[in-house]
Amino acid sequence: MENTHYQNLTRTFARLSRFSHLSAIASWDMFAMMPPAGSAARGAALAEIGVLQHQILTDKQVGQWLSAAEQENLNDVERANLREMQRHYQQAVLLPESLVEAKSLAGSKCEHAWRTQRPANDWEGFSANLKEVVKLSREEARLRAEAKGGSRYDALLDIFEPDMTSARLDVLFADLKSWLPSLLEKVTDKQAAANLVAPTGPFPVETQRDLGLDAMALLGFDFNAGRLDVSAHPFCGGVPEDVRITTRYDENELFSALFGVVHETGHARYEQNLPREWLGQPVALARSTAIHESQSLFFEMQLGRSEAFLQRLLPQIVSRFGNQPAFEAQNYIAWNQRVKPGYIRVDADEVSYPAHIVLRYEIERALIDGDIEVDDIPALWDEKMQAWLGLSTKGNYRNGCMQDIHWTDGGFGYFPSYTLGAMYAAQLFHAARRALPHLDQAIAAGDFSALFDWLRQNIWQHGSRFSTSALMTNATGEDLNPLYFRQHLEARYL
Amino acid sequence: MENTHYQNLTRTFARLSRFSHLSAIASWDMFAMMPPAGSAARGAALAEIGVLQHQILTDKQVGQWLSAAEQENLNDVERANLREMQRHYQQAVLLPESLVEAKSLAGSKCEHAWRTQRPANDWEGFSANLKEVVKLSREEARLRAEAKGGSRYDALLDIFEPDMTSARLDVLFADLKSWLPSLLEKVTDKQAAANLVAPTGPFPVETQRDLGLDAMALLGFDFNAGRLDVSAHPFCGGVPEDVRITTRYDENELFSALFGVVHETGHARYEQNLPREWLGQPVALARSTAIHESQSLFFEMQLGRSEAFLQRLLPQIVSRFGNQPAFEAQNYIAWNQRVKPGYIRVDADEVSYPAHIVLRYEIERALIDGDIEVDDIPALWDEKMQAWLGLSTKGNYRNGCMQDIHWTDGGFGYFPSYTLGAMYAAQLFHAARRALPHLDQAIAAGDFSALFDWLRQNIWQHGSRFSTSALMTNATGEDLNPLYFRQHLEARYL
Repeated sequence: MENTHYQNLTRTFARLSRFSHLSAIASWDMFAMMPPAGSAARGAALAEIGVLQHQILTDKQVGQWLSAAEQENLNDVERANLREMQRHYQQAVLLPESLVEAKSLAGSKCEHAWRTQRPANDWEGFSANLKEVVKLSREEARLRAEAKGGSRYDALLDIFEPDMTSARLDVLFADLKSWLPSLLEKVTDKQAAANLVAPTGPFPVETQRDLGLDAMALLGFDFNAGRLDVSAHPFCGGVPEDVRITTRYDENELFSALFGVVHETGHARYEQNLPREWLGQPVALARSTAIHESQSLFFEMQLGRSEAFLQRLLPQIVSRFGNQPAFEAQNYIAWNQRVKPGYIRVDADEVSYPAHIVLRYEIERALIDGDIEVDDIPALWDEKMQAWLGLSTKGNYRNGCMQDIHWTDGGFGYFPSYTLGAMYAAQLFHAARRALPHLDQAIAAGDFSALFDWLRQNIWQHGSRFSTSALMTNATGEDLNPLYFRQHLEARYL
Repeated sequence: MENTHYQNLTRTFARLSRFSHLSAIASWDMFAMMPPAGSAARGAALAEIGVLQHQILTDKQVGQWLSAAEQENLNDVERANLREMQRHYQQAVLLPESLVEAKSLAGSKCEHAWRTQRPANDWEGFSANLKEVVKLSREEARLRAEAKGGSRYDALLDIFEPDMTSARLDVLFADLKSWLPSLLEKVTDKQAAANLVAPTGPFPVETQRDLGLDAMALLGFDFNAGRLDVSAHPFCGGVPEDVRITTRYDENELFSALFGVVHETGHARYEQNLPREWLGQPVALARSTAIHESQSLFFEMQLGRSEAFLQRLLPQIVSRFGNQPAFEAQNYIAWNQRVKPGYIRVDADEVSYPAHIVLRYEIERALIDGDIEVDDIPALWDEKMQAWLGLSTKGNYRNGCMQDIHWTDGGFGYFPSYTLGAMYAAQLFHAARRALPHLDQAIAAGDFSALFDWLRQNIWQHGSRFSTSALMTNATGEDLNPLYFRQHLEARYL
């Protein structure tokens, strides 16, 4: 019996996912394991397989199969899979192979150099590489926008969060801007009164790692199908069958690595619980980067910094590091719910975090749409940091516009996912709380089974079967509503 | 200007080497990092890229370019590169894609299951998987032998050591058999008189690791271009730009991990010093597995267990672990030159090691040539271990025929490389000593620069430019001569 067109497609996409597997592991290795001299060869290898995947995906026959499969008899999941295949195909077929390769190489080069340029505060060196990345990303955005309509930046946004537009983001972020600055002021004023005791280190790296593993176990991470390692910038990588998360340690700072682990564990559990029976097919992939962030922030912020969870974790912290005044319950909880505007996005509390995102969104949108140039970034960064958080980054590139990895390899359009994720997370937690009575008691008792079952049923198991909008509506009864995020912040911090 | 045929070939082989890069890193990861549940997906991914590489290499056009390039104007290195390209092509074009894929999948499956079957002594479970691997390896050997002439086993041998035949091995091994058993007896008798003090542990893993890093630094390992990690079976993997070596630790045993590291450092330095200007081309690959083993054994046995080197290492051992009676110089040297026949090949001293190899060679040759079946292995193993070393492995599969990883993924034909390597190493060390006066004093002083320069000039920098025979003749004045190995053993142990 001959294959159907749909079957030909599933075979092709399964093959692509095997190449993605190698690419994912080699990328994880690049950040977590690779010594410096391996960089050029690794960049070339990743670019080569990127070009190969692009060739396979954009093969004429794939386009023909996609059209023909529309007429075949498919069930609902297969139809969703076909829709996702079409999305991947259309996104790829727009780009010439030479651009795919050039972007991959320029990204590897810029990212690798950034590792030493950032500590050296070397904006001049960095911006030279970044200009090349921006040039190629603009070209990519131009091609995507031509095919899709809408602005160039919107065309990149759509890669990370399908159907999201800057028009919609502008509304969401305008709402944020209307209440966040005053909330931030109120909270910092209120917290200024509290005289908190800081934890006193050193906290040995090995013990911090053990505590992180405790937290991962508590949160249901499957160690049979994943690992915890170290990288400069925490991330979640690997493949659903083998999820690699990382954090970084500072012997003088206890909670940064720990909440990094809690955050990445949220990403990891989503990956580890994607629909097994469809693994290797586009429908089994995570819905979007914003939904991915919603899971990590659900774990880190909604759950992780809740009083009930913090209480649950405290005995393990004391047993690992011994007791000290900072671990007195009330002080410890207040310490982990501090709101303190600072330079660094990844260290930011959840109240000031959106400021970091709106700032980056405005800059990267203007950059991609051609309204500003790379050389304009530092001044704009400084101006916006002053306006939002009252902090100057003049000459401080390291802790200003050079702090993030995202732009180094052309990930423009990603940043909004963080704040969208925070909004989705608040909305999901609100819905879960409504569905699960006695949730706080269960959390305080260390019993997260009902909560995780709820996430599994409502988010994880669906992969990319539904649009983000349908997924959220099915899970919570309504499409994205930023009100829940505001309510969450006000309830926790005012 | 149009590309020459030769240029088309170098581009194709550079592309293949980028895929090999990903495959090498993913394989290293599989042994050193991967959690168990990642196994099936990893196996599928590695098989997929193996098939892809096979497709690219055996493309009709590659065959045409290879013929046409013969007529082009090439320099000596290019001509050697073309010869190696032809070798790779001819070895690949014989095998149908389906066999390549089936062998990769069966190998991954057998190796993965072996990890738990070996400690469980589960011969029944293991042999079921091994039969499939043997079936596919026999098919491979049949196809290769048909094209090449000679026996099936010889066709596999040729993959690892070009131009080596079992007829030649039989002569070499017959020579060994004529003197090794009596040497072994004399040495064990002689050593029985010595009353050695065993090192007393525990030796913490972290400190052992630090000592291994000391030894690597002493031996010139480039940490900017490589790493040391842990795996069940020590190996050297990765790529020349980023060499990954592993060892394994036992808190009660100090020297096993250390000499594992010294051994793998020999492999690593060969890889790290392959000709940079040709990297990515077949001519820049290591000459053969036997020459590779000659470098690791040069480091571990010729250099590493020499009195001068052991003396040089002693202060670092004492500084890491404190002093104890076993570290008294004479005891420590004698301890590290002990000859003690045992079950485990990787733990064997250099005098009894060849027994392990000849045994495996005889079994795997018979197995591939179809004279015996998988079910016959345990009895043959027991019989040969009894004859060579007076040890019974009846029912002890774990420490008998299940101890090695090589057969799990169909690496039949590899084992002879170890003893060929020992012979090459002795011959090379003999030549280096002749070329370098005061070598022992330099080693005792920790100055290996002249020795390593000699290796770089005579072996490392040539990659695959010359045949093994020409390489050895250029370096030592004659082709492989097993006399030096015998002389070395007699000088050190009698």
